Amino acid sequence: MKKAILASLAALVISAPSTAATAFTDAEDAVKYRQAAFQLIRHNMGDINQMIKGEVTYDASRVQKRADALVLVTTLPWEAFQVAGTEQGGGDAKADIWNNLDDFLERGEKLAADASTLQAAAQTGDKNEVRQAFGNFARNCKACHDNYKN
Amino acid sequence: MKKAILASLAALVISAPSTAATAFTDAEDAVKYRQAAFQLIRHNMGDINQMIKGEVTYDASRVQKRADALVLVTTLPWEAFQVAGTEQGGGDAKADIWNNLDDFLERGEKLAADASTLQAAAQTGDKNEVRQAFGNFARNCKACHDNYKN
Repeated sequence: MKKAILASLAALVISAPSTAATAFTDAEDAVKYRQAAFQLIRHNMGDINQMIKGEVTYDASRVQKRADALVLVTTLPWEAFQVAGTEQGGGDAKADIWNNLDDFLERGEKLAADASTLQAAAQTGDKNEVRQAFGNFARNCKACHDNYKN
Repeated sequence: MKKAILASLAALVISAPSTAATAFTDAEDAVKYRQAAFQLIRHNMGDINQMIKGEVTYDASRVQKRADALVLVTTLPWEAFQVAGTEQGGGDAKADIWNNLDDFLERGEKLAADASTLQAAAQTGDKNEVRQAFGNFARNCKACHDNYKN
């Protein structure tokens, strides 16, 4: 299975040598990158979550800042899963990711779309809209983790 | 030492329980966060650098995507330097950061402004403009590292 993935990745490289989709120096670099992106997602989510739960004062402009960040950072990790040699390097990353890469990447796109919905909700300044959009965002995080995260 | 930090954190919590500026769970979380943000900055810079140097084919839309990411990620690390107990936790972070925190944060704002200039250059699609704006961005990274990074 791993061989097949490497072969198909190698074929990709051979067919398009000068338009590499990423600039990772090596597999470890790619793993670090996706872990870094998830770290930023987690933190910006966590802050919104604490505000919704009332653990810190709800601040609409801070929610908006967090949602703006999420719109961008939810687009970042996915390229780093498409680098040869990273299939077992992620610690948290299940091999099933690469057995179902299309599904996984589709879920990534969905998450980024959810973040945009959350951003739109944040722009209204309505806490209930934010709560609903955030709940949807968080549920889709979890659904993907259930399948693909150790 | 650890006790003193905990005491100052406790004081912080008592004086402003509901308007914490960040959502870091602890000092280690803050250190991880800023390291993650720099990781993303480094990677998105690196890709533009390789395109400018001709190591990979120059692709104006890819440069733009990278510049868009830099505009956001250059705003992220700074809050994580303002968390008690992280003064020696960064590995690369010199103590001088906290001796000159205003200067350091100002440089952070400058970097984010440089990223916006780079984004504007990327939007023109003119490689020379991108090269110039990127050079400026990279020089300011280095200037700050010379002072504040081990």
